[in-house]
Amino acid sequence: MASSSDGTPAKTAGSTPRTRVRRLPPRGHYDHATVEAILDEALVSHLGFVADGQPYVIPTLHARLGAHVYVHGSAASRTLKQLATGIPACLTVTLIDGIVLARSIFNHSVNYRSVVVLGVAVEITDPEEKLAALTAFSDRILPGRWDEVRPPTRQELKATSILRLPLDEASAKVRSGPPGDDEADYALPVWAGILPTALVQGTPVPDPKLTFDVPAPVWDGLPRSLP
Amino acid sequence: MASSSDGTPAKTAGSTPRTRVRRLPPRGHYDHATVEAILDEALVSHLGFVADGQPYVIPTLHARLGAHVYVHGSAASRTLKQLATGIPACLTVTLIDGIVLARSIFNHSVNYRSVVVLGVAVEITDPEEKLAALTAFSDRILPGRWDEVRPPTRQELKATSILRLPLDEASAKVRSGPPGDDEADYALPVWAGILPTALVQGTPVPDPKLTFDVPAPVWDGLPRSLP
Repeated sequence: MASSSDGTPAKTAGSTPRTRVRRLPPRGHYDHATVEAILDEALVSHLGFVADGQPYVIPTLHARLGAHVYVHGSAASRTLKQLATGIPACLTVTLIDGIVLARSIFNHSVNYRSVVVLGVAVEITDPEEKLAALTAFSDRILPGRWDEVRPPTRQELKATSILRLPLDEASAKVRSGPPGDDEADYALPVWAGILPTALVQGTPVPDPKLTFDVPAPVWDGLPRSLP
Repeated sequence: MASSSDGTPAKTAGSTPRTRVRRLPPRGHYDHATVEAILDEALVSHLGFVADGQPYVIPTLHARLGAHVYVHGSAASRTLKQLATGIPACLTVTLIDGIVLARSIFNHSVNYRSVVVLGVAVEITDPEEKLAALTAFSDRILPGRWDEVRPPTRQELKATSILRLPLDEASAKVRSGPPGDDEADYALPVWAGILPTALVQGTPVPDPKLTFDVPAPVWDGLPRSLP
């Protein structure tokens, strides 16, 4: 979250008038490191596109490789077919870090880290890039999983559509820390602070059809618990 | 998740050609109870709208009251100003319930419950409805919080814009349960099953500026841990 000395976030190629954070500008971040870290931590993104004038927002897995973010799905997917025609898209991820309890209703808030990526998605056809992207999706789900399971057949690869969105036009918005209350409200005898939140994982549940005595994988993609 | 006897989900007013689940139709649900339960459990939604042909997807808090879902924010917010002009909107929520580890790369998946609401948002001006909606937002953050803290001033109410979206055109999509593997793959000696996930809360962190010895609130909005 690089900032210049006057507190203004450092601008990069990711900042354009369309991605500039207008509401509460100090929450805006435009450096690649911040944008990429949030994209990499989020398990699921929300993909926006327009069809017949109607916006649609669809949850989907994403994976980042360098300066691109990838989405994938069935080659029969309406969403991916529409996006592959070169229409404008928006991919947004949001990490919810806590509920912010203030001393006034008005100053209640949520701590979060979000990224908005604008651009036009391109369908990947190069077999090597397709395989690299699929490996990246696999690593998002469980690092090393690719080498443990049956790889995709030619038919499965054909049935999978992968789209690539550049990170050229992207921005992050971050709220962290305690509530910001009005000066007079600090005198109110009410608890204020943060209820931290995070997506965590529980105990692995074996498939009832699992007949082999193999240990469940250890995954460090999400924490096991919050303090 | 009502289904007719042939396994087809029961249709309600929420189902239109635009909200019908096309990919994997058995995952679609259109009954109000399923849609409302998912909306009520999700802490944050993703709101889609179009400006100058570009879709934008913005994370926001939401609250449901009856057959409407509300969003709110600063009266100066670009997003809310655009939406209040009567343009089509899409509000999507997604709960991530688990990582589904299959025996082939291709059959890996995510367990989730999502809702997509399409419609046109209307700005609320009636003071009573505005107050009811704000109370609903407050209850989402912490039930009963409204009565503990300083209520909004007339100025703060004026600075808050609230929009209402009907649940007339809404659908849910749900994946649950173990992986669905190809018949031949069940012979592979690889662990398969679910890594459950959920948004949980950690230990409350008091505001450093808290000078009163008051106990932190107990919140049952999210679980404390996963088994």
